[in-house]
Amino acid sequence: MKALVFDSGLEVRDVALPVVQSGEALIRVLSAGICRTDIEIKRGYMDYRGILGHEFVGVVEKATNSFLLGKRVVGEINCVCGQCLYCRMEMPRHCANRTVLGIQGRPGVFAEYVALPEANLHLVPNAIRDDVAVFTEPLAAAFRIVEQISLLADDKIIVLGDGKLGQLVAQTLWLYSKNILCVGRHRWKLDLLSRLGIATAFHSEEIKERADIVVEATGTSAGINKALALVRPEGTVILKTTSAEGFRMDAVGAVVNEVRILGSRCGPFRPALEALAMGTIETRPMISESYSLSDAKQAMARAEDPDVMKIILHV
Amino acid sequence: MKALVFDSGLEVRDVALPVVQSGEALIRVLSAGICRTDIEIKRGYMDYRGILGHEFVGVVEKATNSFLLGKRVVGEINCVCGQCLYCRMEMPRHCANRTVLGIQGRPGVFAEYVALPEANLHLVPNAIRDDVAVFTEPLAAAFRIVEQISLLADDKIIVLGDGKLGQLVAQTLWLYSKNILCVGRHRWKLDLLSRLGIATAFHSEEIKERADIVVEATGTSAGINKALALVRPEGTVILKTTSAEGFRMDAVGAVVNEVRILGSRCGPFRPALEALAMGTIETRPMISESYSLSDAKQAMARAEDPDVMKIILHV
Repeated sequence: MKALVFDSGLEVRDVALPVVQSGEALIRVLSAGICRTDIEIKRGYMDYRGILGHEFVGVVEKATNSFLLGKRVVGEINCVCGQCLYCRMEMPRHCANRTVLGIQGRPGVFAEYVALPEANLHLVPNAIRDDVAVFTEPLAAAFRIVEQISLLADDKIIVLGDGKLGQLVAQTLWLYSKNILCVGRHRWKLDLLSRLGIATAFHSEEIKERADIVVEATGTSAGINKALALVRPEGTVILKTTSAEGFRMDAVGAVVNEVRILGSRCGPFRPALEALAMGTIETRPMISESYSLSDAKQAMARAEDPDVMKIILHV
Repeated sequence: MKALVFDSGLEVRDVALPVVQSGEALIRVLSAGICRTDIEIKRGYMDYRGILGHEFVGVVEKATNSFLLGKRVVGEINCVCGQCLYCRMEMPRHCANRTVLGIQGRPGVFAEYVALPEANLHLVPNAIRDDVAVFTEPLAAAFRIVEQISLLADDKIIVLGDGKLGQLVAQTLWLYSKNILCVGRHRWKLDLLSRLGIATAFHSEEIKERADIVVEATGTSAGINKALALVRPEGTVILKTTSAEGFRMDAVGAVVNEVRILGSRCGPFRPALEALAMGTIETRPMISESYSLSDAKQAMARAEDPDVMKIILHV
């Protein structure tokens, strides 16, 4: 099958079909999305080598559970052992023996086929188009925040970053508090949120009032330190992004102000699918361009342009 | 009066008696303790200039509340407005208009006299000797942790740092969980904890099991990054120290492991005084040397020696 492989370089080439382990389904990929993490992997993040990609929608072609056959599915990316300390502590996304789709020890979805545990799959409601369904995984990461903290309706929230993740986070948290401000460097991206009624500010504007909660979604050390400057004493900073080059956070202010800093990674698929089906989260304006899998290398190059948002691969 | 002043240099000299504002008491200092923060201020932390010192016990000589006159007291270091947003949010230690004893906008206690709001004062039980009472403030900072998080009796805790603060934190948390390990670089300091029954490890020993909670009390960036490496996924890292040179924390691991990082500063005096009165916290073995106020400059120099723990000034 055709796949976008990252090893010594980045190349679309023919590779063997995935090996389907016990408990896994074979899925024919329909569409996939390029995530900032894919670009970071190309830069060395996680030392991953293999087929890239983890945001996808596909059709189940082989499965033990015959109910799944022919169904359109999305899939959670952490494949877990169910036995280790963290699985037993009900934190399976932190499984000590996990593989992660296209990120750690498991071939990704920029390919014609992918294998995933059947337990990871979620049926996609008919109301969700393919190019919207690929947003399920990053939107789930946004919903992770409301699993981690309890939001009050009048909590003042600042989201730093107007990229794909910042947009999904701002829209998601806007379901819980209308007192929200998204800060970014791209007026046209901020305009996507303004049109939905969400307040925005250009990054150079002075922000006078400190926030109860600041979500860092710029993927930069500068963003982290800005978050620490904008949060009120005893407030919460949520770190939503990872980076190949690592982050450096100046922690002294966090100590003096007794800030709570929360790392936040993957999240629950169910509320994400519900929000996409009901249209309470708007994703299609975020799609910049679509490519065929054969052109995945060019698509990756385009995705690095800061003036591009989501790139979709059609397989 | 005589005082240790830090401005262009560090010097014991004669200065005017403190100006006692409305609502404040004048206190004759009996004993004071040198804290790591005093040394950091000398290195530039907080850009403070003036009389150093914030750990003290003294006798009230002037006060509006006549009940206080002649009483032995310790004092909370944050002097607050009671009116600002954070005071109204019941976070007075984060008062936007605060002065902080010997740290920010208010002369400290390495002096014959000090002025403090009467509301900041706590009577010292007779059971507590002067050289033990000076530990009230740093011990309160240790008790701050149990205000911030709920500890379970079987929570596995690691305390990084065997200095004064690390020792107080280890002893305090040991009241809540016996599953605690203190890691340090000085065998004789670790031995002080071992004698109390608290498990210790030399810093170069490999620690295999990750902890639910790691308290950083080394005051170094290396300590912070070690804390992030030792905490379990979704565990808590508590940052207890500040530094003139600032800290650099590598935040990527914190994101992937969804760690909660909590800054922690000043704490409640009442449980600290109770613990000192009852002897449940052992402080006297931590006292390395005592000096008179006239020799405060030499005392500060000695306090920088890593083989010295608490230095007491007798006034």
